[in-house]
Amino acid sequence: MKKIVVLGSGLVGKVMAIDLSKNYDVTLADINKPALEQIAKDHNVNVVTCDFSKKSDLKNLLLPFDLVIGAVPGFLGFETLKTIIESGKNVVDISFFPEEALELDALAKQYNVTAVVDCGVAPGMCNMIAGYHNKKMKINKYECLVGGLPQKREWPFEYKAVFSPIDVIEEYTRPARYVENSNLIIREALSDIVEEEFDRIGKLESFNSDGLRSMISTFSHVPNLKEKTLRYAGHAELMRIFRETGLFSKEKINVKGLEISPLDLTTKLLFPKWKMKEGDEDFTVMRIIIEGEENNMPVTYIYNLHDLFDRNSKTTSMARTTGFTCTAAAHLVIENKFTRKGISPPEYIGEDEGCYKFVLGYLEERNVKYKIDVIKKNK
Amino acid sequence: MKKIVVLGSGLVGKVMAIDLSKNYDVTLADINKPALEQIAKDHNVNVVTCDFSKKSDLKNLLLPFDLVIGAVPGFLGFETLKTIIESGKNVVDISFFPEEALELDALAKQYNVTAVVDCGVAPGMCNMIAGYHNKKMKINKYECLVGGLPQKREWPFEYKAVFSPIDVIEEYTRPARYVENSNLIIREALSDIVEEEFDRIGKLESFNSDGLRSMISTFSHVPNLKEKTLRYAGHAELMRIFRETGLFSKEKINVKGLEISPLDLTTKLLFPKWKMKEGDEDFTVMRIIIEGEENNMPVTYIYNLHDLFDRNSKTTSMARTTGFTCTAAAHLVIENKFTRKGISPPEYIGEDEGCYKFVLGYLEERNVKYKIDVIKKNK
Repeated sequence: MKKIVVLGSGLVGKVMAIDLSKNYDVTLADINKPALEQIAKDHNVNVVTCDFSKKSDLKNLLLPFDLVIGAVPGFLGFETLKTIIESGKNVVDISFFPEEALELDALAKQYNVTAVVDCGVAPGMCNMIAGYHNKKMKINKYECLVGGLPQKREWPFEYKAVFSPIDVIEEYTRPARYVENSNLIIREALSDIVEEEFDRIGKLESFNSDGLRSMISTFSHVPNLKEKTLRYAGHAELMRIFRETGLFSKEKINVKGLEISPLDLTTKLLFPKWKMKEGDEDFTVMRIIIEGEENNMPVTYIYNLHDLFDRNSKTTSMARTTGFTCTAAAHLVIENKFTRKGISPPEYIGEDEGCYKFVLGYLEERNVKYKIDVIKKNK
Repeated sequence: MKKIVVLGSGLVGKVMAIDLSKNYDVTLADINKPALEQIAKDHNVNVVTCDFSKKSDLKNLLLPFDLVIGAVPGFLGFETLKTIIESGKNVVDISFFPEEALELDALAKQYNVTAVVDCGVAPGMCNMIAGYHNKKMKINKYECLVGGLPQKREWPFEYKAVFSPIDVIEEYTRPARYVENSNLIIREALSDIVEEEFDRIGKLESFNSDGLRSMISTFSHVPNLKEKTLRYAGHAELMRIFRETGLFSKEKINVKGLEISPLDLTTKLLFPKWKMKEGDEDFTVMRIIIEGEENNMPVTYIYNLHDLFDRNSKTTSMARTTGFTCTAAAHLVIENKFTRKGISPPEYIGEDEGCYKFVLGYLEERNVKYKIDVIKKNK
C-alpha cells in the first residue's frame, strides 16, 4: 500500500489524513502530541510528532513516504515545502504562505518533483476551474468571491476562524493584488467593501484580499482578474480599525519596559473568541464568474458553492471544501495521473480535462457540490 | 495676595492656573517639568515639580497655600484629595476618581476643610444646576446628556480625548448607575445607545456612563436620574467591541512569556490617535432636562450648552467648560462665599442662589453660555 504523510494536524490536515486513510497507509505528523493521540485513537491513521522547523528532523521523517501533504501554518509553509522538494518527494500543499511558490520551480524540476501548491478551495479549486475553462475559451474576466463563515452570527466579530487564524490576519494585512484592464492593481487588504447577495444566505460583504496568487502570472493573458473575501457585513470595517489602531502590527513596541509585538497580544485575546466551539457550524460560500468568448460566442460560466458543516462526522465545511480538493489532487499525483514536474498551481490540474473531471467527481462523492450555470448569447 | 496651588498641569489644570492668575498668586505643580517650564515662560504662573504619589512631598508643597485645586488623573485623585484634607487646606477638585468622595466627609469636617469635588462641567456644572432647581421645586426627573467632541470627524474613532484619556477608558468600563422609578439600575458602560438630535450639530449617540456620582445619594428623593455620554454615532459600539475583546482589561495576561496588561498596550496604541493635534478643535455639548413641579405647576427646565474651542487662546472647549466652572468655585471658596465644611459635591453650591448666579455670570464672562428654556403648563 502506498504511503502518504500529512504534515500538520490542524483544522484541515486532520480531515485530509482521515480521508486518505481509506485508500492509503497514512501518517499524520505534528508538533502537538495530544491532538495526534486523539486522532490515532479514533482513526486508522499513524501519528508521529515532529517539529517541522527542524530541517533534518523533517527530512528524516519524510524518507519512507510516496507522497507528502503540506498543511502547516503559512509562516512555516515555504521552508517546509523547500525541504520536501529537496527530499525528492512529490507533494500537494495547502499552506497559505506569503512567499512566491514559483521561486521553487527550478528546484522542484531539479529534484524531479511534482509539487502542487495552493491546493485548497481558494486558492485551489477556483484555480482548477479557471484552468479548465482557460483551455477552452478566451477569458476576459475572472472573478472569485469566497468566504468561510459561521452559521450563527455572534456579536461582535460574526466570524470564526475555520483555518489557521494567524493566516486570517495575514489576509487582512497583506496588500491585495488584482488585475483590471491588464493593469496590476495593488490595494490594501480589506479595501473596496461591497455588499453582495447570495441565495439562501442573504447579504454578505466582499473586500480585497491577496487571493489570486499564482494566477497573477499564470493568467497574465487575462485582462481582468479579481479575488475577494466574503464576510458578514461590518467585519471588514472592524478589522480595518483593528489594523489602523496598530493591533495587527508585528513590530515590537515598548509598553512599560516590555518589548512586545501588538499582534501577539491581539491574537492572544482574539483567537479564543474566533475559535469554533462545540455545536458551532460553519459554511463555505464561493461564487466564480468567468466571462469571455468560446467558439466565437460570448459566454459566462458561474460556479456557486454553498457547502455546509457535516454533522455526522463533525467536519467543518472549510475542512471539507479545502481538504477534499487537496486529497483529490493527492490521488491524481500518487496514481501518476498528474505528473507535471516543478511547481504546479492548481490551474495546471484544471487544464487536464480528465484530472478536472476526477476532482469534481471526487468532491461530489463527498457531497461538495458546485452548481454550474452557463450563459451563452448569440453575437 | 491670596495664594492658590493647582495640582496637575494637564489639559484642564493649565487653563485653570492661567485663569486664576488674573486675581491670585498661582503656582502650578506637576511631575512633568518641560510642560511646566513652557507655561511659566508664557504666563504669570509659578511652577514647581512634584510627584503627588509621594505623600510627604505633596504635604510640604501645600503648606504655603490658601486654596488647592485638584486636577490630577483619576487614579491619583482620591489619595491626593485625602492628603490635601489632612493638610487642612480648602480644595476644589475636578479629578475623576473611582472612589466615593463622600467617604472623606468626616475627615474633611475633622480638619475643618471645605472640599468641593467633581467640580467640572459634568460632573460639576450639571450638579450645580440640579442643586439650584432642587431648592425651588420638586424634581421628578433629571437627565443630563454630555460630551466633548472633535469638530472634525476622523475615521475610525471620530474622537479626541479632551481630558485624561485613561479616564475616558474608565467611562467606558466602569459600570454605570442610574435611577428609574426610584430603583437604582446598574448597567454596563456603553449600554443603551440612543440616537439624539442637537441643534447646529446634528445626530449624536448617547450611552450610559457612570456620571451621576454624588447625585445618586444627594438626590435620593428624585425618582428618575440619568446621565449619559455623547459621541458621534458608532463610537460606543466600537468601544464595546474593544472592551469585549479584552483590550481594556487591566488584568495581566501572559503573551509569549511576558506578563502584560492589555490596557497598557491598547492605550499605548490608542492615545496617540486620540490626541488633539495642532489645528484640531473640540466642542462641548450638554443638555440637561429637569422636570417636576414648581409652585404647584408642572415645569421643565432645559439647559443647552454648545461651547466651542477658543481660537484666540487655543483653549479647548473642554478645558474652558470644565476649568472655568472649577475656577468660579475656587473664587467662591477662597473669598469665603461658600464655606460649607466637609465634602461638597457641586449641588451644594447650586443650592445657594448667590453662589449659583455668580458661577453662571463667571462662565458667561468667559463666553461659556448656557441657554435656558422653561416650559410651564397649567395643570
